Parts: sequence; structure tokens; C-alpha cells
Amino acid sequence: MKITHIPNKADIEASHELIQDMIFRTPVMTCQSINHLLETQIYFKCENFQKVGAFKMRGGANAAVRLSREEQAKGLATHSSGNHAQAVARAAQLLGVPAYIVMPSNAPSIKVAATKGYGAEVIHCGPTIDDRTTTLNQVIAEKGATFIHPFDNYDVIAGQATCAKELIEDCPPLDILMAPVGGGGLMSGTALSGKYFSPTSKVYGAEPEIVNDAYRSFHGKGIVKNERIDTIADGLRTNLSEKTYEIIKENLEDIITVSEEMIIKAMRLIWERMKIIIEPSCAVPLAAVMTKSDLFKGKKVGMILTGGNVDLEKLPF
Amino acid sequence: MKITHIPNKADIEASHELIQDMIFRTPVMTCQSINHLLETQIYFKCENFQKVGAFKMRGGANAAVRLSREEQAKGLATHSSGNHAQAVARAAQLLGVPAYIVMPSNAPSIKVAATKGYGAEVIHCGPTIDDRTTTLNQVIAEKGATFIHPFDNYDVIAGQATCAKELIEDCPPLDILMAPVGGGGLMSGTALSGKYFSPTSKVYGAEPEIVNDAYRSFHGKGIVKNERIDTIADGLRTNLSEKTYEIIKENLEDIITVSEEMIIKAMRLIWERMKIIIEPSCAVPLAAVMTKSDLFKGKKVGMILTGGNVDLEKLPF
Repeated sequence: MKITHIPNKADIEASHELIQDMIFRTPVMTCQSINHLLETQIYFKCENFQKVGAFKMRGGANAAVRLSREEQAKGLATHSSGNHAQAVARAAQLLGVPAYIVMPSNAPSIKVAATKGYGAEVIHCGPTIDDRTTTLNQVIAEKGATFIHPFDNYDVIAGQATCAKELIEDCPPLDILMAPVGGGGLMSGTALSGKYFSPTSKVYGAEPEIVNDAYRSFHGKGIVKNERIDTIADGLRTNLSEKTYEIIKENLEDIITVSEEMIIKAMRLIWERMKIIIEPSCAVPLAAVMTKSDLFKGKKVGMILTGGNVDLEKLPF
Repeated sequence: MKITHIPNKADIEASHELIQDMIFRTPVMTCQSINHLLETQIYFKCENFQKVGAFKMRGGANAAVRLSREEQAKGLATHSSGNHAQAVARAAQLLGVPAYIVMPSNAPSIKVAATKGYGAEVIHCGPTIDDRTTTLNQVIAEKGATFIHPFDNYDVIAGQATCAKELIEDCPPLDILMAPVGGGGLMSGTALSGKYFSPTSKVYGAEPEIVNDAYRSFHGKGIVKNERIDTIADGLRTNLSEKTYEIIKENLEDIITVSEEMIIKAMRLIWERMKIIIEPSCAVPLAAVMTKSDLFKGKKVGMILTGGNVDLEKLPF
């Protein structure tokens, strides 16, 4: 059954139950040398080890599993050239139903191959947002498939919320919870889980300076959009939506913006010290701790490492 | 108390107790897509997450902790430009005693810095083995420090054996145990732990074709040496020693040799599918499974991932 309101505590708990066989309960890692360096205690929730290599599996699974059997049978549809595409494809594969993924024809072939590898049908479209919408609407009309929006969807938000829920369950009481902000699906879910399962934790978002729409929206009046998108953190180029803005506006302590240089530095620190592979978007919360270190000194910080899907031939170091 | 014979079961158990506060009990990971691809079930023991980023911490800690307080106080000494240097430095630091590490003057500055970072004194020497031995002997004569050989040392071997012991304890019954072979310290320890704690497991070594001294020694009569050392697996360039040869000769099923190309392919597979950072030497056992896939089909394989210390600016992809 679809969630039609801002997810409450019971919605998130039920979502966690519903998707438990479709996701991994990912480990929480700590790193003595990073803690020592930043004089803080960070608990990293490793969603880079999640199915499809990113937290997006949670939201995709929750949206899929909450459809009726008839809806599922007609297939899941979305537009994405990133981790959400693979999440929807994998969720459909696990349920044994079709997935239709609309991708721009210039999408990286490795992403197309990975999505097809989960059994999805990839439908190419032109490079503009209009092309994408037109093609997606055609697919939905033809197949009767259900569109799963990457973040402007309460089922997706409740699914992403299970990540912070697990992190809270697996850690000592946390002073701070952190996630990066792109479209705001994970950020909204993290804020809600913080509110329900760890009400004394402050929740901070982290965002690249170059795509600071969420920062400006949070501090202003209503949703503003990015004017440029040339950040290395390619998962965070999207703008907030109505549903995510509403939750973020009410439930965040603040959003911290970071430079491109600090993102690369944080990414490298995690690679070198923790020996795990994370994508640039994933390094943004640690970059925020490095940028505003006084705020985090002596604190217990739960931080979501969102994903590990990176092109090894295009590393920034 | 030093171990003066081939470590027996009680020696390895006692070593594990002795070093437990100086090491991490590293996690065992599995990867559905690698298992699916190779039609096998591999349990990866993640020593890339070990202190100093490699299994070498186990042997270094065991050799250090088994010295008398007087011996410890005079310091630990070794020659190494690799992970053993950092292991001895870190073990000394944890015990609050000096470490003297002899390194060639052309050793990578990142390795020198890491070793100094653990509080060790780095003593530079010329590039030849004679230079190294002369300098090490001077240090030992001057300081009264104890030399900890990287592998020709039963305490080191018993320390490395604790890695396979943990792997066996944390997995279902394993058909096969695998480790890479360099000087043979880890390989010997793995073979002994297999014999004592999982006697039905077959133990295989894996070695680059270019530095196949262990393969030739195992199949011949006595220790033979490498004639070239230009493998990407820089941790495996060393030859077997008397102590490691004796154990390996008696306790291995076989040694599988692999091409450079397959090492890089296996390394990339682990990076891309498991999202963890391993060094080239560490990929050699998986390369062996990819090379002799029939041997491993349908089997439960325990595989030690030895370390994750890699220069991010010199990746092979």
C-alpha cells in the first residue's frame, strides 16, 4: 500500500519490514585515524556495500513492494542514468516483473550495461528534460507501468529512511546525523528517522557549494534551483522537490556547503584510510566535517556513505 | 616467550590471545556477483581493514609481545619498505618501546612517512641487500634491539596463522583455504591453521608466474630463487626461507601461478564489485580461482585479502 503522507514512525518501521529481504543490512565502520585527525567519532554507514552499490536500493525496493500485484505485473518505470536506475531494475528483477528505464542516449555505456544486467529494458531518449518526460510518458501509456520518481515519492523517502534507522540502532547515542543532499530523498528520510528514533540527534545536510539549491531553499522562502551543475558530486546535481523540501525545511538543523577541493580531499581520505571505495557524492558529508570542524569536535556523528559506483578510469587523483 | 619450533595448535591459540588487543578481528565479506560469476562461494577475510592496512600487523605484534620486557625496552628492528615496516613500528608504538626500521634511501616517501607516523626511527641504507644487512647489523649492535624478520620467524608465522584461524571460526566449513605466497609467512601460517582448525580443508597458495620461486620450490627439491621480480604484486617478490619452505612443502595441496593480466583483472573485479581497496598482491588468490576455475566450482573457499596499501596515483587501470 502506497504511503500518501509524510512518513510517520510506523510507516518507516513497516517499510523496513517490507524490504528486509531485498536489501542488505550494511555494516557500520569506524576509522581510528580519521577520528583522531578530526577529533570526533564518526560512525560510517556503508551503503556503498548495499545491493546495486548504493542506498537507492532501499527506496526503489519500498516503492516497488508497496504496489499491488497487478501494478507490479505491468512493470516499474523511471528515468535515471544513475543509481536509481539500477535500484528500480534490481527491485523489479527480485519481484520477477518488468522494468523500463528511460536514459539519455549519451548515458555512460557502463551504466546502461549495469541496468540491462539486472534484466531491465533501457529506452533511450534525447538529452533534454522534455525528451525524458515525453519518452517516460509514452512508456507508461504503452505498458501501463508505474513511474517511481527518484525522490519526490513518500515510499521512496520511507525506504531511504531505513538507512538512518539501522545506523541509529547499531550505534551508541549519536549527537549528529549526516547525509548529503541531492534531490533530498535520503536527506528527508534521514531527518525523519532522526526525529522518530533518535530525537536528541541534530540532523545536518551536506551539499556542494556549486549546487547549493538545498542550502538556499532551506535558508530562504521556497524552492530555488541550481544555475550550474558542474560539481564532481554527480549524484547531487538535482534540485529539491515539493515533498523533500517540505520535510527538510522542518527537520534539519542546517545544511553545510563544501568546495570541490574539499570533496576530493575527503574522498581520498576515506579511500586511503578506510580502504573502501566511495563515489564523490558520498564524500560530501565528511567534507562538511572537515570544513566546519569546530561544530563536530568531541561529537558522535552518524554519517551515511551513500554509494560506491565510480568510474575507475576517471578518478580525481 | 619466543616460539622455537614449527608452531603447534596451542602456540597459535596462545598467540591469538596474546595479540588480541593489538589487532582488529577483521570482517569476512562475501560478494554475490563474484560468487555468481565464478560459480563458487568465496569468503573474503578483509585484512585490508587490519591495523596498518595489512595482515602483517599480526606477525609483528606476536613477535614483539613475546619478547621479554628488557628486550622490548631496547627496541624492535627490521628491514622493510613495505607493510612489515609499518607493522613493527605500530607494534612498538603500542608497547611504548622504540622501533628502528632500515629502509633503502630510494623507498617511496609515502612509506617512510607512514612508518615515521607510527613513531619509528627510519634508518636509510644503500639499495643492495648487503647495504641493508650491514646497516641493520649496525643498528642492532648499537641499540641492542631485536631483529624481527618479516617471515623467517616462528612468532611471525604463528601471528599470521591467527588470520586463517579467525576466518575458519567465522565461516561455515570451508573446502579450500587460500593465501598468496611471497616470503611464505602468511602462507605457512594459513597452512598450519588449516591443518589444526579445519583439517578437511585443502590449502592452496597463489603466486605470480613471474616470481614463481615458491611454485618451483614446492614442486622441486629445495629452495629456488626468483630470477626476475618485475611483477605488479610487489608484496610477493621475496623468496621462501628455510622455515617457511619447510612448512609449505609439507602442508600445501598446490601452488597456482597467475599472469600479470589476471592479477589486474582480479584486482579490478574486487574494487568494482566489492567496493573495497586492495593492493595488487592481494588479488593473486582470486586471480588463481579465475585461472583454474574448474578446481573451485561449487566449493566453499576461504580467501585472505592481505592488504590495501596502494598508491592511488599509480593504479593499473
